[in-house]
Amino acid sequence: MSGNTIGKLFCLTSFGESHGPAIGGVVDGCPPGLPLSEADLQPDLDRRKPGQSRHVTQRREADAVKILSGVYQGHTTGTPIAFVIENTDSRSYDYDKIKDLFRPNHADYAYQQKYGLRDPRGGGRASARETAVRVAAGAIAKKYLREKLGTTIRGWCAQIGPYRFEHALDETSWAAVESNPFFCPQPERVPELEAFLTQLRRDGDSIGARVNVIASRVPAGLGEPVYDRLDADLARALMSINAVKAVEIGDGVAVIEQRGSQARDELTPQGFTANHAGGILGGISTGQDIFCSIALKPTSSIPTPARTIDVHGQAAEIRTTGRHDPCVGLRATPIAEAMVALVLMDHYLRNRAQCGDARSPTPQIPALAPR
Amino acid sequence: MSGNTIGKLFCLTSFGESHGPAIGGVVDGCPPGLPLSEADLQPDLDRRKPGQSRHVTQRREADAVKILSGVYQGHTTGTPIAFVIENTDSRSYDYDKIKDLFRPNHADYAYQQKYGLRDPRGGGRASARETAVRVAAGAIAKKYLREKLGTTIRGWCAQIGPYRFEHALDETSWAAVESNPFFCPQPERVPELEAFLTQLRRDGDSIGARVNVIASRVPAGLGEPVYDRLDADLARALMSINAVKAVEIGDGVAVIEQRGSQARDELTPQGFTANHAGGILGGISTGQDIFCSIALKPTSSIPTPARTIDVHGQAAEIRTTGRHDPCVGLRATPIAEAMVALVLMDHYLRNRAQCGDARSPTPQIPALAPR
Amino acid sequence: MSGNTIGKLFCLTSFGESHGPAIGGVVDGCPPGLPLSEADLQPDLDRRKPGQSRHVTQRREADAVKILSGVYQGHTTGTPIAFVIENTDSRSYDYDKIKDLFRPNHADYAYQQKYGLRDPRGGGRASARETAVRVAAGAIAKKYLREKLGTTIRGWCAQIGPYRFEHALDETSWAAVESNPFFCPQPERVPELEAFLTQLRRDGDSIGARVNVIASRVPAGLGEPVYDRLDADLARALMSINAVKAVEIGDGVAVIEQRGSQARDELTPQGFTANHAGGILGGISTGQDIFCSIALKPTSSIPTPARTIDVHGQAAEIRTTGRHDPCVGLRATPIAEAMVALVLMDHYLRNRAQCGDARSPTPQIPALAPR
Amino acid sequence: MSGNTIGKLFCLTSFGESHGPAIGGVVDGCPPGLPLSEADLQPDLDRRKPGQSRHVTQRREADAVKILSGVYQGHTTGTPIAFVIENTDSRSYDYDKIKDLFRPNHADYAYQQKYGLRDPRGGGRASARETAVRVAAGAIAKKYLREKLGTTIRGWCAQIGPYRFEHALDETSWAAVESNPFFCPQPERVPELEAFLTQLRRDGDSIGARVNVIASRVPAGLGEPVYDRLDADLARALMSINAVKAVEIGDGVAVIEQRGSQARDELTPQGFTANHAGGILGGISTGQDIFCSIALKPTSSIPTPARTIDVHGQAAEIRTTGRHDPCVGLRATPIAEAMVALVLMDHYLRNRAQCGDARSPTPQIPALAPR
Repeated sequence: MSGNTIGKLFCLTSFGESHGPAIGGVVDGCPPGLPLSEADLQPDLDRRKPGQSRHVTQRREADAVKILSGVYQGHTTGTPIAFVIENTDSRSYDYDKIKDLFRPNHADYAYQQKYGLRDPRGGGRASARETAVRVAAGAIAKKYLREKLGTTIRGWCAQIGPYRFEHALDETSWAAVESNPFFCPQPERVPELEAFLTQLRRDGDSIGARVNVIASRVPAGLGEPVYDRLDADLARALMSINAVKAVEIGDGVAVIEQRGSQARDELTPQGFTANHAGGILGGISTGQDIFCSIALKPTSSIPTPARTIDVHGQAAEIRTTGRHDPCVGLRATPIAEAMVALVLMDHYLRNRAQCGDARSPTPQIPALAPR
Repeated sequence: MSGNTIGKLFCLTSFGESHGPAIGGVVDGCPPGLPLSEADLQPDLDRRKPGQSRHVTQRREADAVKILSGVYQGHTTGTPIAFVIENTDSRSYDYDKIKDLFRPNHADYAYQQKYGLRDPRGGGRASARETAVRVAAGAIAKKYLREKLGTTIRGWCAQIGPYRFEHALDETSWAAVESNPFFCPQPERVPELEAFLTQLRRDGDSIGARVNVIASRVPAGLGEPVYDRLDADLARALMSINAVKAVEIGDGVAVIEQRGSQARDELTPQGFTANHAGGILGGISTGQDIFCSIALKPTSSIPTPARTIDVHGQAAEIRTTGRHDPCVGLRATPIAEAMVALVLMDHYLRNRAQCGDARSPTPQIPALAPR
Repeated sequence: MSGNTIGKLFCLTSFGESHGPAIGGVVDGCPPGLPLSEADLQPDLDRRKPGQSRHVTQRREADAVKILSGVYQGHTTGTPIAFVIENTDSRSYDYDKIKDLFRPNHADYAYQQKYGLRDPRGGGRASARETAVRVAAGAIAKKYLREKLGTTIRGWCAQIGPYRFEHALDETSWAAVESNPFFCPQPERVPELEAFLTQLRRDGDSIGARVNVIASRVPAGLGEPVYDRLDADLARALMSINAVKAVEIGDGVAVIEQRGSQARDELTPQGFTANHAGGILGGISTGQDIFCSIALKPTSSIPTPARTIDVHGQAAEIRTTGRHDPCVGLRATPIAEAMVALVLMDHYLRNRAQCGDARSPTPQIPALAPR
Repeated sequence: MSGNTIGKLFCLTSFGESHGPAIGGVVDGCPPGLPLSEADLQPDLDRRKPGQSRHVTQRREADAVKILSGVYQGHTTGTPIAFVIENTDSRSYDYDKIKDLFRPNHADYAYQQKYGLRDPRGGGRASARETAVRVAAGAIAKKYLREKLGTTIRGWCAQIGPYRFEHALDETSWAAVESNPFFCPQPERVPELEAFLTQLRRDGDSIGARVNVIASRVPAGLGEPVYDRLDADLARALMSINAVKAVEIGDGVAVIEQRGSQARDELTPQGFTANHAGGILGGISTGQDIFCSIALKPTSSIPTPARTIDVHGQAAEIRTTGRHDPCVGLRATPIAEAMVALVLMDHYLRNRAQCGDARSPTPQIPALAPR
C-alpha cells in the first residue's frame, strides 16, 4: 500500500529503475480463468516502445516482457501475475557527467531532498521507462474488460504544441490513429508534424502535448462516492504519469464559462442527449462513453544549456544530451489508455463486490455518443 | 478503505446524507498533543456555510460541529476524532415531487444504476452538504501544518463565467479575498459580479467557476512515486469535490503549447528562477509554493425545465426548485483548501514514516515565489 | 486505513472513549438493499451489555444505538452507515485518584509511552466499552450473511478458570447457551459457576476464560492467500479484542502433538470425514464449519493492591476500585461472534469481487459437521 | 492491497508458484540509506533452505536471491526493492499423477473451489516454497531494526510432538539454537530427536511442532489501537504461515486458568516485575521483550494412503510421494522470525509517522527480561 501500488482490488505494484537490471510489476487480484500470455502484453508495449519513429528516443530496448507467475496452462489462476522487462540498452555513461547536477524540471532535486540520495542513471526510478510497467499491466485489464464486458479503451494525440488534431470518433478515424507512430487521427498532417518536430530537435527544444482517451461500453455503476469517485481515481491515475500537469473529464476546463442551461445532458427514453459530463455523474459511471484528457509538459531533457546547481548547492550549467523525445506526448497514448484501464478494472471489481453482478439496471438507457 | 475514506495515514472517513439526522466524519491518525476544539473547526465551516450572501443557497444550517472523541483536556490524544454536524434545516418536502425523476447532470441516475435505490432527499449522499465534513476535517490538518511547519493553504475564486479575477499574491490581496463572500481577490468588482449573478438567477440559470489554491512553506520531499505522487493525490482529492471537471497543477493545460526552453524552472543557489511546475517535480514537493487550480461546472439544479425520465424509463419534464447557488464555485474555496490540506497532511506523515524528521535537506535552496 | 478501521471492503471505523460523549462507528461498503434498523443492532448489544448478571460490571448504560446515515426507508443504500451510542453512565470521579498511576496489565503505560498523553477516564480508548461498537457493526454483517447465505455465527463460553463446559453442538445446546448470562452450554452448572465468581469477587480477584465460535454454512472459497488468509484475518480480528492472548483455529495448539496420519480430514464423495482444520485449508474456507477459539486473560482491574509507578516514575501502590467483571470472558461471546462476522463479510465481498457470484463449485461436497 | 501484500507502510508483495520460473517479492516503503545487498538476504534464506538435514525435504534449490531494484551503490534508495529467487529444481513430474486429486489437509480443494482452477505442480501458490519470499523480505526488516534500534528477533523450536525443549534465554542457549538444523535450544537432545524423526519417516507419518519467537529491545509505543494492535498484526502475520493453527502472545492459552492477582506484571521504578503480557499492553509495545508462540500442524504430505476425491467428485485413494519434511516445524523458525520482523518494521514506521521520532518516553522504565 505504499506509493508504488495502484488499485484496491486489481492492484499493480511496480518496481525498477531505468538502468537497473530490470523493471517489472506484480498484478494481484486478477480474476481467475482469463486466457493470458506474454503475447497479450507485448502489442501495447510495442506501441509505447522507444525507437518507433525518428522523433522518439533512440534507445533500443527489446522491451520483451516475461511472465513469472500467476498463469498456468495459458490461464490466470487468481494468484499474483509477476512480469519483468529486462533493461538491455542502458548506457549509463551517458549520465555520469551530470550525476551531481540537478536537471531543471526533472525529479532529480526532489528525489535528493526526499531520500537524501538517488540513482542518477537515466533518472533512476523517475524515468519514463517505468511507464512500460503500466502499459504491460494495463494490457491485462484491457483484455479482461474487452472479453468480459466489451469495453474498449482507446486514446489519441489531440494536440502537439500549436497543432490540434480532429478525431471523427468513427472506426475509420480510430484506424487512422493506429496507422502512424504519433497516434494522430489526421495522418495526412503527419508530414507537417514531422517537420515541426525536426525543427524543434534542431533548435534543441521540446514541446507539450494533449492526449485524449475514450472508454466505451463501460458498465453503469462504477465508482465509489464520495472520495473514490471514478473521476477522482482517473484523475489520480492520469496525473501520476510523468509530465502530466492537467486532467480533464468531460468538458473539462471549458465548464468554467458554461451556463447550466446549455451544458446539461438531458435524459430521454432513447438515452442522454449529450455527454458534457464525460460519462460520469456524482463520481459514478452512467454507461455513456468516458472521456478523459491530459496535458503533458514539454520534455525536460533538452540540449539547450540551463542554469542549475550541484548537490553541494553550487551554481552550474547543464546541457542534457542523450536520447530524448522532443515531445513526451508522442508515446503517452498507450500509457494513458493503460491507466484508464487499470482504474476501470479496479472499479469493476469493487462494484461487483458491493453490488454484485446480478443486479439489472433500471431503466435501461442507451448511452448516446458524446460530443 | 472503502470509498468514503481518504488518506493512508491521516484518514478521514465521512458519512451522512443531506436530509438525514446528521453528517459527520472520523479523523484517524492525527498526531497526539495538538490543541484542538470545536472553535478550530468552526471558522472554515462558517466560510463555507450556505446563506453567507444572497447568491448562495438560502438553506439555513447552523453547521455547528460537535467533537465526540479523540480530544482530552483540549488536546488530541492520537485516537480517532469523530465529529458530527446535525442537519437542522432539511425541508424534505422540497424534493418529494421529484423523487422518481432523475435530475439531469445530477448523481440521481448514476446512484440508481449502481445501488438499485437511493435517498432522493436533497441529493442524499451526493449532496454538496457532504463537503462540510471535508472542511471540518481539513481544518484539523490546516492547524497542524500551520503550527508545526508554518504551512499556509489559501484559495480564491479566480473566475466566474466570463469574469476573471487577478490576485497579486501579496498579503493585501489575501486579505481582500477574505473580505467578501465570493473569495474574490478584487473586491471592487464584487458589485459587477453580484449583478451578473442576480441576472443569472432571474434567467433561471447557473454558471461555472475556477478556484485556485496555493500552499506555501510546504516541506520538500512530500509525495511518493510512482503512483502516490503528491500531484496525483491532489488531483484525486480535488476531482472528488462535487462539480469539479478539471484539475491543473502549476501551468496546467497551458503546458501543451509551451516549449521546454521557455517553461523550465532553473535552479540557482538563490532558489528556483520560476515555478511552472507548481512546486512539484517527479511527484515530490520541492519546497516551492504548490499551485492547484480546479474548474467547477455550473450548478445543475436550475429552475429552467429540462427533459428527463423517471425511474420507470418514461419521459418527463423536470424543473428543480429549492434553494440553490447559481454558481457552485462560490462556496468551493474552503472546500478546495481542505482537500489540499488533507493531502499534504497525509503525505507529511507518510514522508516522516519513511524518511524521518531529522534528515536535513542538502542543499538548502530558498523557494522563490511562483508565477 | 489507520488503526481504527478494520476490513478492506466491508469496513468498520470505530471511535470513542469510555467517558467521552459517545462511542460509535461507521460501516462503509455494506451492500445496498439490506433491510436494517436499530432493532437489528440492539439485541447483540443487549447480549453484551454490562449489568446482565451480578457478575458483570454494574455500570448501567442503556447502550441504545442510533443510526445516523446510510439507511433510507428501512433499507441500506450502499452509503456509509454511521451509528452512535451515547455514554450515559460515565462516573469519571471513579478514576480521578488513579489518573497519574499506571494500572498494571492495563494499557495505561503503553498509551502514555506512545502518545505522550492519555485520557485516563475509564481507560479512555482502551476501555472494553469500545467493543460495543464491534458488536453493533457485527450485527449488520451477521444479518447480511444470514439472510443472503444462511450463514450462522454463534459462540459460547467454553471455560472459566478451571471450569470447562461441554457443548453438544445441537440446537438444544445452542438454546442453552442463550438461556443464561454466561453463554454457558451447561446451564445446570451455572450455580456452581456463580459461587466461584462470588468467591473470586470476595477475594478481590479475577479469572481467565475461553470462548469458542463456530460459523456454519460459510461458502467455500473465502480467504485470499498468501497473507490475507481467512484464518490470518480471523486471528487478527480476534486478537484485537481486549484481553485476548491466544487464537486457535480448528484443533489449535493440540496439533503440536498430533501425527499427520491421525489428524487429517479425508475427503469422500459424501464430504469430509473430519474437521481438524476448522473449515479452512490453505487460508481458504472449505464449506465446513469454521471453528475458532480464544483465550482471555483475567480482568486486570482488581481491588487487590499492586505495586506500580506514577507518570513521574515514582513507586506507588494502586488498588482499582470501580465496577468490573471478575472475568472479562463473561461478556466476550457476542464480541467474538461480531469479529468473526466482520471478517467473513469482508471476505465474502472480496471473493465476490475477484471470483464472482456465478461460479459453481466443482465438485459439490457436503461439508460434514466437525468435532 | 490484495491478499499477497502485507504491511501498510513497509509492504511486501509476494509472487510465485512452487514450480513456475521464479518466486519473488517487492518490498516498498523501505527507508533510504540502508546498506543492503544480496548478502544480507542470503543467510536467513540458507537457514530456511531445504536439504539442511536428512529430515527436511531433499529438494535442492540454490535459493539464490537476486535484487532487481531499489538499491544503488550498496544502499537502499527508498524505491521498491524487488527480488527474485529462481526455481531451479522443480520436478513437476512428481505431481502429475495427483493433479486431479485433492490431497487431504492441503489447499488443493479450497483453491479449486475458490478459483475454479489451480496450478497443481508442487502445491502451486500454496506451496511452503513461498515462505522463502517472507524470509528474504524479513531479512531487510531485521537489518534495519537491528542497525537502527538494536532490536533482535530470534526464534527457536520449542516442541516437536512429545519433545519439549527448554531455552535458558541466555546467549549460550541462543548460540545452541543456531548450532543445529532443528533450531533446538538443547542440542544434546538432537540425537533423540533425529531417531524420532527417522522412525516417523519409516512410519510414513509426520508430526506437529511449536516455534517461539522473542523480539528484544523493541521500542515502546508500537501498535495502533484498536484494530491494528501490535499483537493483532503479529497474530495475523504468524497465522498466515503455512500449517500454523494457533498463535499465542505472552502467556497465551495459559491465561485461561490464571487469576488476575497472580498473573499481573507490576511496575516498579526498576521496571516490570514480570512479563505475562509478552511485551504488549492494550495492543502497544511496552519496551519489554515481545514473546510469540505458534503451533504448526503435522506435514500433510505423507506417504500413508488416504481417502480422497478427484476433481469430478469421485472417490479415490492418494499416497503423496515426493520430498517432504516429516515436520514442517523444522524449517519454520526463520519464517516466524521474518513475519515478526515485517510487523515490527511496519509498526515502527507507522508509529514514527504519527508520533515522531523525537518523543522521549516518560518515564523511562527499564524493561525486565521475561519468563
